[in-house]
Amino acid sequence: MGGMTGRSVNVGVLGCGTVGRGVVKILTGNSSLLHARVGAHIELAKVADTNPAAFEGLGLDTSKTTNDALSVVNDPQIPVIVELIGGQGIAKELVLKALDKGKTVVTANKALLATCCPQILESARKGGGDLFFEAAVGGCMPVIKTLRESLVGNRILALYGILNGTCNYILSRITFENLSFETALQKAQEAGFAEADPFLDISGGDTRHKLALCVGLAYGTSVSIDDIFVEGISHLTPDDISFAQEFGYRVKLLAIAKRTENAVQARVHPTMIPMYNMLSNVSGPMNALTIVGDACGELVLYGQGAGMMPTASAVVSDLADAARNILSGTRCRVPVMSWQGQDSRPLPILQMDEIVTRYYIRLAALDRPGVLSKVAGVLGDNGISISSVHQKGRRNEGPVPIVLLTHEAREKNVQQAISKIASLDVIADRPVLIRIEEEDEA
Amino acid sequence: MGGMTGRSVNVGVLGCGTVGRGVVKILTGNSSLLHARVGAHIELAKVADTNPAAFEGLGLDTSKTTNDALSVVNDPQIPVIVELIGGQGIAKELVLKALDKGKTVVTANKALLATCCPQILESARKGGGDLFFEAAVGGCMPVIKTLRESLVGNRILALYGILNGTCNYILSRITFENLSFETALQKAQEAGFAEADPFLDISGGDTRHKLALCVGLAYGTSVSIDDIFVEGISHLTPDDISFAQEFGYRVKLLAIAKRTENAVQARVHPTMIPMYNMLSNVSGPMNALTIVGDACGELVLYGQGAGMMPTASAVVSDLADAARNILSGTRCRVPVMSWQGQDSRPLPILQMDEIVTRYYIRLAALDRPGVLSKVAGVLGDNGISISSVHQKGRRNEGPVPIVLLTHEAREKNVQQAISKIASLDVIADRPVLIRIEEEDEA
Repeated sequence: MGGMTGRSVNVGVLGCGTVGRGVVKILTGNSSLLHARVGAHIELAKVADTNPAAFEGLGLDTSKTTNDALSVVNDPQIPVIVELIGGQGIAKELVLKALDKGKTVVTANKALLATCCPQILESARKGGGDLFFEAAVGGCMPVIKTLRESLVGNRILALYGILNGTCNYILSRITFENLSFETALQKAQEAGFAEADPFLDISGGDTRHKLALCVGLAYGTSVSIDDIFVEGISHLTPDDISFAQEFGYRVKLLAIAKRTENAVQARVHPTMIPMYNMLSNVSGPMNALTIVGDACGELVLYGQGAGMMPTASAVVSDLADAARNILSGTRCRVPVMSWQGQDSRPLPILQMDEIVTRYYIRLAALDRPGVLSKVAGVLGDNGISISSVHQKGRRNEGPVPIVLLTHEAREKNVQQAISKIASLDVIADRPVLIRIEEEDEA
Repeated sequence: MGGMTGRSVNVGVLGCGTVGRGVVKILTGNSSLLHARVGAHIELAKVADTNPAAFEGLGLDTSKTTNDALSVVNDPQIPVIVELIGGQGIAKELVLKALDKGKTVVTANKALLATCCPQILESARKGGGDLFFEAAVGGCMPVIKTLRESLVGNRILALYGILNGTCNYILSRITFENLSFETALQKAQEAGFAEADPFLDISGGDTRHKLALCVGLAYGTSVSIDDIFVEGISHLTPDDISFAQEFGYRVKLLAIAKRTENAVQARVHPTMIPMYNMLSNVSGPMNALTIVGDACGELVLYGQGAGMMPTASAVVSDLADAARNILSGTRCRVPVMSWQGQDSRPLPILQMDEIVTRYYIRLAALDRPGVLSKVAGVLGDNGISISSVHQKGRRNEGPVPIVLLTHEAREKNVQQAISKIASLDVIADRPVLIRIEEEDEA
């Protein structure tokens, strides 16, 4: 394969949006640094974008830019393709074509990887090229490398991640400024931390894509995103977040994976975690991931999970790995999904109904005698025991909040109890439920 | 070279103490996991220790144990040597011999690497083997891999590390229980978090070894440990730690490296950092490292910095890298010290006198009029301006503490001023000085 003259590796970048521009900046601005470390020049051979304005201000010679991404993939002089277009349309076509040609592909596209993983892995396997995606999870944090390489000798017992900066920013503003969700979202949009259409973020969908990739790497299990329970943050109120604080907890949108004896739990939902937990102190748009291994114990990574330069930093680390493999004539030195295909023993994903954890339940109760006894009765009938109850002061009018924390209970039982409680005539509004995580390692 | 039959890589472990036993446990207990991920068997061929009791309870066949470490190094069937003896005596000989033979060496020996780096690198270069040392800094945290690989495209602007669990444990107990240093040290020894001879830890010496390695990786500068300023924690009092808290700071023993325009700062000393900083929340024996890069921004790693299994986890990650290189016929895929020798442009280490930071100064003043004006006069004469003064309440007898925080000042000027202040007749005792770090990225 061409593109490796002297000590130089040609790279083609598809998509010159925010992250693409960051990659161009690092490859041009830190080019001598990269040369000194990789021992070869990582040559930005072509950058493709359909919008000619995308190249403005980057100082790229016009011979290096094109509006035709396919021509970059087809160029025999370019062995490494960086896909930063995003989405599952043209990006998918280009990634598959590059892999089919045996090229090395670097991508930040978690949606594509999480939804089309088997097809992409099959193309990579057939083509024999490498596939890197450090930038797909956690921006600059070395999540993929740590799971694939650094913790290779560990059985992963659990993962707890704050993997969406938009949600964490919104929750931080609700927590510290007592804003409503709607106002906090608007502030996030004004500050550039939320998209005009924030659905994929606030629904937990983006976090679920990232969790699917982490579960695959940690457990050798290819997960369909449909198997991962997801609940977003738009129903959270400043009241719930402030009650949580009174009990010593913060509320975070967590991606959670846990190994049980014969299965893996994988779920994304707002979660109450103790104040003293490192993840409680992750504020604003920052991301963090706690990985618990049988040998390493608790390991936490913390950093910027999005943005031009942090994401580009991760892409460039993949480019260095790609170049090192090409220069040393090695391919697939580390398996794409961390496990050798033939040895992978996929663990099934546990049904959400089956998980066991503690719960925060807030009820809007009419201020009548006997409410608590009715509620406690329903919980007891479903085998759920209460660890703590706070009945908040009477309000002049309208329902009174009752906040309950439970001991460990099964999700199925809790959902049944909640449905029953919601139908009681003394309950004014849909109960609010927030799951709690507080094992030592959480 | 032999030792790679079928898909199997033979490993010899020298030293079966705490970490050695951990490595044996992972290689035997998680052997199928490692096989599934590396694609080959990492075969524990020999374990050497002069103490036969060291092998007890590990279930090792006697054919696999020896008291003769040299025979393991000389065995042509063993291409990978793990050195876990420690120190700079026999360990150094064995490491050099293994490297001279072109073997791959994995070591956790920061003292050896930090003090004999040029000699060891030269042996590695001539022999052509790999040298890995993930376990030398930060236990299970992927410090070396992150600096060498994940942040390869970043100019490292600064490093801030809590890299000694003994010191952090002692400081945590002083902070939360108001113990004296001596009592806290004793508690640390009782809890197994401090050695019988704790000097290397509490003097900052161990942290300095680790910082020397990090500076080498981050800046391509080979540092003599004598160039790194070091101050330990044994002079710290619960009073100083509690005054620091009143100002909103925690006191940590930090390893600090910063890039200035034409040089690198590298220093180890007790440091006041703001409560809101992630490092302030690192308690007990835990370690953490903040790395600030020009692209990634602030990245934090947090985990267990010592102990049998966390350290073994790091050793095994190196073994997987070693095996992957051998299996794919690659050597020195990543330069040992992160930079290609011929391209490294060493930056000089800034003299401690030249650093500029903020300072906490505590004086034991006799309760007489005019003390503060004398002290302020000396500081002013040395170009040091005060940002805040707290004169603590009178005591029935003895001197009164005066606590000052300064604006940014040059170390040289501060030391001159402190000497002058110490000689004032109104000052009863040697002034206490703690440096402050609070840049946004700290």
